[in-house]
Amino acid sequence: MIPHLYSVVLAGGSGTRFWPASRKSMPKQLLAIGPDPDCLIAATVRRIETLCPPDSTLIATGAHLLAATRRALAWLPDSSFLGEPVAKNTAPCIAWATWEVLARDPDAVIMVLPSDQHVGDPESFRRALTTAVETARGGVITTIGLEPTRPETGYGYIEAGGERGPGVRRVERFVEKPDRARAEQYLASGRHFWNSGMFFFRADAMASAVRRHLPDVAAALDAIARLPVGERARATASAFEAFPSVSIDYAVMEKADELAVVVASFGWSDLGSWETAWELADKDPRDNAAPPEAVLIEARGNLVRDLRSDGRRRVIALVGVEGLCVIETDDALLVLPREQAQDVRKVVEELQRRGSSERV
Amino acid sequence: MIPHLYSVVLAGGSGTRFWPASRKSMPKQLLAIGPDPDCLIAATVRRIETLCPPDSTLIATGAHLLAATRRALAWLPDSSFLGEPVAKNTAPCIAWATWEVLARDPDAVIMVLPSDQHVGDPESFRRALTTAVETARGGVITTIGLEPTRPETGYGYIEAGGERGPGVRRVERFVEKPDRARAEQYLASGRHFWNSGMFFFRADAMASAVRRHLPDVAAALDAIARLPVGERARATASAFEAFPSVSIDYAVMEKADELAVVVASFGWSDLGSWETAWELADKDPRDNAAPPEAVLIEARGNLVRDLRSDGRRRVIALVGVEGLCVIETDDALLVLPREQAQDVRKVVEELQRRGSSERV
Repeated sequence: MIPHLYSVVLAGGSGTRFWPASRKSMPKQLLAIGPDPDCLIAATVRRIETLCPPDSTLIATGAHLLAATRRALAWLPDSSFLGEPVAKNTAPCIAWATWEVLARDPDAVIMVLPSDQHVGDPESFRRALTTAVETARGGVITTIGLEPTRPETGYGYIEAGGERGPGVRRVERFVEKPDRARAEQYLASGRHFWNSGMFFFRADAMASAVRRHLPDVAAALDAIARLPVGERARATASAFEAFPSVSIDYAVMEKADELAVVVASFGWSDLGSWETAWELADKDPRDNAAPPEAVLIEARGNLVRDLRSDGRRRVIALVGVEGLCVIETDDALLVLPREQAQDVRKVVEELQRRGSSERV
Repeated sequence: MIPHLYSVVLAGGSGTRFWPASRKSMPKQLLAIGPDPDCLIAATVRRIETLCPPDSTLIATGAHLLAATRRALAWLPDSSFLGEPVAKNTAPCIAWATWEVLARDPDAVIMVLPSDQHVGDPESFRRALTTAVETARGGVITTIGLEPTRPETGYGYIEAGGERGPGVRRVERFVEKPDRARAEQYLASGRHFWNSGMFFFRADAMASAVRRHLPDVAAALDAIARLPVGERARATASAFEAFPSVSIDYAVMEKADELAVVVASFGWSDLGSWETAWELADKDPRDNAAPPEAVLIEARGNLVRDLRSDGRRRVIALVGVEGLCVIETDDALLVLPREQAQDVRKVVEELQRRGSSERV
């Protein structure tokens, strides 16, 4: 355990990239789509439990996801769950969590982690987190940058500057998803790292930054803290209605004098698509990732997932097909080439257009 | 109606070519896999009902298929159904049906029809049947040969000789499925026709032929006819055990002095595979045959069939795929390229190897 460490796991999201498994009411972090048998958020919390005990772990999620999220993390105390009354991007949510943590521990250091990523090497991951926490304890907002292994155009990058310490560099700037040519340059540069979306800060430092950059949010959170416990939920709900919808990057981080980045490499993936799920999955000698009962004849490089809940045995047979994703849920079946995995969103858009709201 | 006409619809079979829709207990003729909303056997019986009334229509099926077949043909009287105690190929079955018909009408003409074919032009079909029945009434066993429209290698052919009458020729010989080169020759020859598997004969002529070529079968059927009605079923069962397993082609037709063929063309298909089902189906402008609720994005030439019985609404989404068959039943899902539709049997073989007998 790291003293005074709190984690805030961001578990909002309405991911469409894993349709038909993911839905508004069942976003990606609640699914076991990685190689882990647990759902992604459970794996995330398990991965840090030697650094941060359950009662120092906060889960920030949407009010409509609160029940399902609690079920996925049944071993966490009720006080771990922050159900955002209204989704207002990351800044109001992180500010709220910061106020909650400060009320418990004025010396807290907070790490904010996405709930839906894959980590191939948890030991290295925890070493990087420990370095980032210790860096943040010095007062600087700290991120983790992953050493790129390919010219990925699907991630944002962090451009790093000079060293601040062993494995820690200054952040020069954040870069949006690059085109292919630029991604090739980044890969060769040794100065660009994938933005993991994790960040680390002292709670008091973040509170000061919120007071400076989002004074109305700070004032509202102060007022709520002074209320009797039983009145806080309603006050929080009406406060969130008034909060601006703004990201922590824009509201706070880009305005900081200095940011640090811990450069690391721990088999990270954002698990961004069915293609990535296939890449990470166990595969047979013909590169199929499929349930053992599937019948695969002259089939190569396919991802087959049977996510139905009814427990009826079912044969999925693929003959002579290559590079397909075949995903089954109780009320939907998706067939698309792995290489077009991003186009799942087109299905979701079409269903929305048809008014099939229960399917998206 | 044609006087003294009886039909015998052959409805045995354990087709694997439409797995997962077809099973041992649910062969092709009980499925609505053609463009018709009825199952194939119901469409077959409906197609001839202006020629042959229900009580002159016999359905020869396996004992294990009797209940399902009755349900599919609920408007036929009980006396229409002949449940073969043991499958013994076509000769014993047709002999049995012939004895049944002769007991009702000594002047009967019988037409034997497969139960699982598609007919695109039922009017022309009935005209051809009428010609064949009138030819058979003269005493000659008569078949129907379809004018080939392509060098099909999946059908047997009838080689025709000289004219016997308008649209009726002598049969020179029957030819097994040809290779591609030979099929091209047949297509060009004007003398080769697809063997439809339909044939027509006088009941008394067939009985004489059975007495001559299958005397033991004839004797057993004579003995059964002399029993009280209540004892016939058991006697038939034990008689069938002893019958040889032999086709009517081999046992009778090849030994006939003369056979006639009515040459016709009525949009016939043996509906031999999912590929054929796609060819015959209504298709959208991108050549997809799919339920209206399917979501098809950049998808071309696919066949999608949702044959689940549970009635739960389900979205089937295909993105960016071409020429696939996607077939869903309650307990199986099949994905294969249309062009490999014949390879469905490999799935059935694999399931048999695994001992998944309930799936085949």
